Amino acid sequence: MADDRFHVYDTTLRDGAQQEGLNLSVADKLAVARHLDGLGVGFIEGGWPGANPKDTEFFRRAKTELDLKHAQLAAFGATRRAGMKAADDPLVAALRDSEAPVVTLVAKSHDRHVELALRTTLEENLAMIRDTVSHLRAEGRRVFLDAEHFFDGYKSNPAYALEVVRTAAEAGADVIALCDTNGGMLPDELAEIVAVAAETEARIGIHCHDDTGCAVANTLAAVQAGATHVQGCANGYGERSGNANLFTVIANLQLKRGFDLVPREALADMTRIAHAITEITNVTPNSHQPYVGLSAFTHKAGLHASAIKIDPSLYQHIDPAEVGNDMRMLVSDMAGRASVELKGREMGYELTSDQSRELVERVKELEAKGYTFEAADASFELLLRDTIGGERRRYFTVESWRTIVERRPTGEVVSEATVKLYAKGERIIATGEGNGPVNALDRAVRLALERLYPELAGLELVDFKVRILEGTHGTDAVTRVLITSSDASGEFATVGVAENIIEASWQALEEAVTYALLRAGREAE
Amino acid sequence: MADDRFHVYDTTLRDGAQQEGLNLSVADKLAVARHLDGLGVGFIEGGWPGANPKDTEFFRRAKTELDLKHAQLAAFGATRRAGMKAADDPLVAALRDSEAPVVTLVAKSHDRHVELALRTTLEENLAMIRDTVSHLRAEGRRVFLDAEHFFDGYKSNPAYALEVVRTAAEAGADVIALCDTNGGMLPDELAEIVAVAAETEARIGIHCHDDTGCAVANTLAAVQAGATHVQGCANGYGERSGNANLFTVIANLQLKRGFDLVPREALADMTRIAHAITEITNVTPNSHQPYVGLSAFTHKAGLHASAIKIDPSLYQHIDPAEVGNDMRMLVSDMAGRASVELKGREMGYELTSDQSRELVERVKELEAKGYTFEAADASFELLLRDTIGGERRRYFTVESWRTIVERRPTGEVVSEATVKLYAKGERIIATGEGNGPVNALDRAVRLALERLYPELAGLELVDFKVRILEGTHGTDAVTRVLITSSDASGEFATVGVAENIIEASWQALEEAVTYALLRAGREAE
Repeated sequence: MADDRFHVYDTTLRDGAQQEGLNLSVADKLAVARHLDGLGVGFIEGGWPGANPKDTEFFRRAKTELDLKHAQLAAFGATRRAGMKAADDPLVAALRDSEAPVVTLVAKSHDRHVELALRTTLEENLAMIRDTVSHLRAEGRRVFLDAEHFFDGYKSNPAYALEVVRTAAEAGADVIALCDTNGGMLPDELAEIVAVAAETEARIGIHCHDDTGCAVANTLAAVQAGATHVQGCANGYGERSGNANLFTVIANLQLKRGFDLVPREALADMTRIAHAITEITNVTPNSHQPYVGLSAFTHKAGLHASAIKIDPSLYQHIDPAEVGNDMRMLVSDMAGRASVELKGREMGYELTSDQSRELVERVKELEAKGYTFEAADASFELLLRDTIGGERRRYFTVESWRTIVERRPTGEVVSEATVKLYAKGERIIATGEGNGPVNALDRAVRLALERLYPELAGLELVDFKVRILEGTHGTDAVTRVLITSSDASGEFATVGVAENIIEASWQALEEAVTYALLRAGREAE
Repeated sequence: MADDRFHVYDTTLRDGAQQEGLNLSVADKLAVARHLDGLGVGFIEGGWPGANPKDTEFFRRAKTELDLKHAQLAAFGATRRAGMKAADDPLVAALRDSEAPVVTLVAKSHDRHVELALRTTLEENLAMIRDTVSHLRAEGRRVFLDAEHFFDGYKSNPAYALEVVRTAAEAGADVIALCDTNGGMLPDELAEIVAVAAETEARIGIHCHDDTGCAVANTLAAVQAGATHVQGCANGYGERSGNANLFTVIANLQLKRGFDLVPREALADMTRIAHAITEITNVTPNSHQPYVGLSAFTHKAGLHASAIKIDPSLYQHIDPAEVGNDMRMLVSDMAGRASVELKGREMGYELTSDQSRELVERVKELEAKGYTFEAADASFELLLRDTIGGERRRYFTVESWRTIVERRPTGEVVSEATVKLYAKGERIIATGEGNGPVNALDRAVRLALERLYPELAGLELVDFKVRILEGTHGTDAVTRVLITSSDASGEFATVGVAENIIEASWQALEEAVTYALLRAGREAE
């Protein structure tokens, strides 16, 4: 078991799962729990057994399928219903039967919620807390209490809110987590209220939501005011604007405030864990996410790049390796030689200063025409190789192509494309159909080449972005197409620019096929 | 001019544009500036004239094309180069020539950055600040100073960092904005350092990045410690993890701390403005965004539902209407009856309550399919007229169309389109050529109709935006096309959605032609 002096308590599987569009199967929940345990959190709240059959099953399967190294499982549930004994309440029994070593009980601490939502008396609510905590303690469980709406409750009736804290602690709850359930608090006021609650005998925890954009700061402020138990969710998942992002909280406390929360090597795996969890939840990763986002250590301005070469710490608040992330340089219209060299090194190429000067010139020239390489790493690598090695390696030569999109009198819309090309000495003609002209072109070119290069069967167009760039000084507008492709080694992006959207798409497609063959180790002609 | 006691300073167009994947044309920048002005911010930083040709053009066009009601434009730039006079520095001249009433100078305030990145002496850096500020003040500009890396600088050499603040203020800078450039600060320490800087004579501003997930809280902490000028970006755009989200900062200060920053009715339009800006930037909106996100007031927990009916304030930290959001907003902020009625009235239509209920239903249904009416007023007006008048008024009926794009063996790329339609009882076939398939389609349809409707000769396609919308639950991705057209009465926008990009473009083109004929006063068939 982890050190008990400070708790890192994850509620992704319960409160995080309240996020719109997030639906986790039992197998998903088990997989997320393994990742969280790998990070070294102390507690994993698995769900509400009894209230939710899926969660009941989670706790059942967890007994045999989860082999936790650091974390303990917590079962979430409510205090007993009004007017009955905790020992007789089937929902309380389900918590006990989950066999989770920790039970986290949610209780009302806001007088108006007791009266309007729970429809009982303030005194009965206290009795429900006292009885349920004592009962579960007698059953050998460790009990935490989530004091729901605590801050709004404190503002409505401070004496009652504090009475809830005291009652739970006296009945044997180990932690009273103060919940900013509606997420409306700002750090200063929150810290004052936490400090008052910390003056009781109770051990205080904190549970924040991000409705004011302050969930992380509120959590830190609570810790400074005396809380020794922090709750949050992986990647900041949760209802509305989400819960406190537990990854950000951990990194801030451990790297900037000297807390020893998770093993150093686990922290260095946090970026991978954060991304692995997005694969399970199927929620698009937030590239802006502090510490672990794809862009968290990405630099665009050329101004900075030259100084970064001298000393990266001048432009980074931490060493990204501490959280398993990486510095990335974007090649953009502010490109300077330093960023091109850095980018090349990132990709494993050492450029001479002549080569990097030439590459900068070519990038600038192409960017002036509308190309962008910041989001098209594969096109940049092809350009870099051209600069080092002379001409572009060609796996095929295109003679011509044609796309037709037609709306027939029946209203049906059909797309087809024909590509004529030479490869390995052969002239090949292929026609593809698709749900649009680019899709049809993509199919046609792969169909043409698949017999000679079977690995192209695994190449897939996964995203397609189009942007019309305004013309400058009398030139026509041009269209920029960014294509993301995926093959056995992962995703990569290519770019094409032309007046004609189909021509721009073709360029990006042609680069995607070339890049896929290059990294499959194919020899060019 | 807005009240000068507290500044809301937006840097979306400069620092926000550093975000990975965010590329704004000059027209985009002008459009974003109009939205920010509509929100009532005090200052809009437009870019770095002189360093970036696009930004030079922005300031040039802003003089005639921007009619700002609240905001003043600020030009961003650096202090003069070492070893020359400010009056002789062409980059300083470009700031003056931008004719922006405010110039914001970035200056180093971290001793190591002066020595390693700027490669000059600490004393020369102070001289550069003194000279550049004085020069621009003598030219009649209001000058703000961005003290770059101030907090890291203060920790490295507090005396020097404060000397930068004093020097700039003495030379005539109105505001010294302390920048947490690397974004690594936490609120407690940041507030202590702001309080020290606020003890100087200088007026203090704050500029935060979100690398610790605390940009908003840091901004609030700085205000509490004495800052009276806050910088941030729309939707939290910016490099790495983004800048402080200006919308969140404004809502927190105005709704929770009693500041009077923007007009109440503008705040109530903030959700719409936030979404409209995402349409321009073509960045996927963050549904979790505090206050203005699609999910910001969305409730999933069934537990809450009945209590919400009794008293919504029990489960919401603010009334979502204060920021123009909606508790049950599923599709867009437009999909409320009140806003539809308001929008209709704005266009000169009085809707009965049955009509507006029906229109809301149709908008919701179409938005669920991927349409957006926020940025497509002409399509909205056509939909509104359909709702009032029954069926769509038709000036022509399409039998079929076809586009061909071909790359010939010579390398030449040609596009043509053929449209077959009926108008005024005639069957008409016309073929157009263009620099792309949509351009060819546009020419073909106008060619077909011009003899019958000569005013279409003046209709021009001026902008074309494409967005691929992710599929949900087993459906394929769809393509949304927004077309901006211009005729004798000005610009208007239409929308089309389909799997096939050409089909989506056709829909938007067909609506554009219909709308142009409608407002030219033509009678439909």
